[in-house]
Amino acid sequence: MSDEKKVRAALIIIGNEILSGRTQDANLQHLAKELNGVGVTLSEARVIPDVEAMIVGAVNELRATYDYVFTTGGIGPTHDDITAECVAKAFGLPLIRNAEAQALMEAHYAKTGRELNEARLRMANTPEGAALVKNPISTAPGFRVENVYVLAGVPMVMQAMLEGLKPELVGGKMTLSRAVASYIGEGNMAAGLSGIQDKYSALDIGSYPFYKAGNRFGTTIVLRHTDDSLLEQAVQEVADLMRSLGGEPEFQDMSDG
Amino acid sequence: MSDEKKVRAALIIIGNEILSGRTQDANLQHLAKELNGVGVTLSEARVIPDVEAMIVGAVNELRATYDYVFTTGGIGPTHDDITAECVAKAFGLPLIRNAEAQALMEAHYAKTGRELNEARLRMANTPEGAALVKNPISTAPGFRVENVYVLAGVPMVMQAMLEGLKPELVGGKMTLSRAVASYIGEGNMAAGLSGIQDKYSALDIGSYPFYKAGNRFGTTIVLRHTDDSLLEQAVQEVADLMRSLGGEPEFQDMSDG
Repeated sequence: MSDEKKVRAALIIIGNEILSGRTQDANLQHLAKELNGVGVTLSEARVIPDVEAMIVGAVNELRATYDYVFTTGGIGPTHDDITAECVAKAFGLPLIRNAEAQALMEAHYAKTGRELNEARLRMANTPEGAALVKNPISTAPGFRVENVYVLAGVPMVMQAMLEGLKPELVGGKMTLSRAVASYIGEGNMAAGLSGIQDKYSALDIGSYPFYKAGNRFGTTIVLRHTDDSLLEQAVQEVADLMRSLGGEPEFQDMSDG
Repeated sequence: MSDEKKVRAALIIIGNEILSGRTQDANLQHLAKELNGVGVTLSEARVIPDVEAMIVGAVNELRATYDYVFTTGGIGPTHDDITAECVAKAFGLPLIRNAEAQALMEAHYAKTGRELNEARLRMANTPEGAALVKNPISTAPGFRVENVYVLAGVPMVMQAMLEGLKPELVGGKMTLSRAVASYIGEGNMAAGLSGIQDKYSALDIGSYPFYKAGNRFGTTIVLRHTDDSLLEQAVQEVADLMRSLGGEPEFQDMSDG
């Protein structure tokens, strides 16, 4: 709904460990909420393995489609960390040893007394002309080429990188959301809700069933748009619909997105 | 690595609530582990919004690429549940009221005494010729067209559907995995590990840094292949590498994938 005026982003989650089920991704949800806070809508995400053709393909398809692309994972020092070279290939740029990144890492390793070996120096490789994304946790930086941000996969590091780059992002109007729930089944809400969606066609209205202990089930309706007064009108109509079906609407705090 | 002989699957997670960050996806990890148990490798996943063009596009692209495609989400009774009609469009099939699904739902609603209204009957719509996927939790079925399985988004229902359809899946050899960890940094493991990967080029060897309280960090190495004896050889070489660097290898239970 009126998606075309939004500033939109895609996320590419790179890592065999997510696809094997070994690791539960935690970056999508965090990125979605943080982007929403600066007026950027996460519109698509892909989870792909550490395979060059897939990384290059996804980067090129998504950077042509969305305002911003974020990648997570695959920028460590080991053989399976191939994101930087794949992003360079996607842009047709040479992969170089980034002098600024190398200087940051030399300073860090001199201070900690650990060895800055060739494997660790691979983490200073970026596509030529890339801008660095600071890593206040473990120093080895991410980077940006045009509209593609390359971030770490470890959530603590990814989150710190994102916090640092957020001021660079140029978002649109922030999408606001309201939610209202009651113990009325989705199937009983559906007809009336469809009428409200038709009336407020610009709103993104989602319906989510829930189950609670004691075999109680109900529905949460989430309404999203940039215009708070329009949201307020529509959420009151949803609440009225719930009351007309015998429910007691409960307005939920949507600070969580 | 030797991915071409595997039976491979893709997952399409359909739902604005995942992309907004409101809901944390729980289906990818569960599907990955269950598929692995029957010799099917989850090779890609996409998270897309409730938008027809995106659902049709993803279904058509991925069903041509992978042995199996699973979708989760968007099969409820409300206006934002458009997965069934989108899958019908992807296959160029009419969307019909599936008589078998309708009969199941009529029996269920007769028993519970709840109203089987038109909105709920929408959940009996499938592409023409689809086979049903049973839903032992809340009756409204999923379905399969060719190699595409359409499942519920609510994890409890999705898991029950998957459990029922698993016997239909024709997998390859099961991918086995072994993991070994020590308090040696990734950067110190990298050179030796790269040599082991070169020697055992058929193995999928992943390196994952970890941090623990007290500023202790280390690396978990995960090795994956169908051949257990090859895995055993390689995991011992990784353990020897850890010892040569002053680490104490700890072999981890990989029952979690």
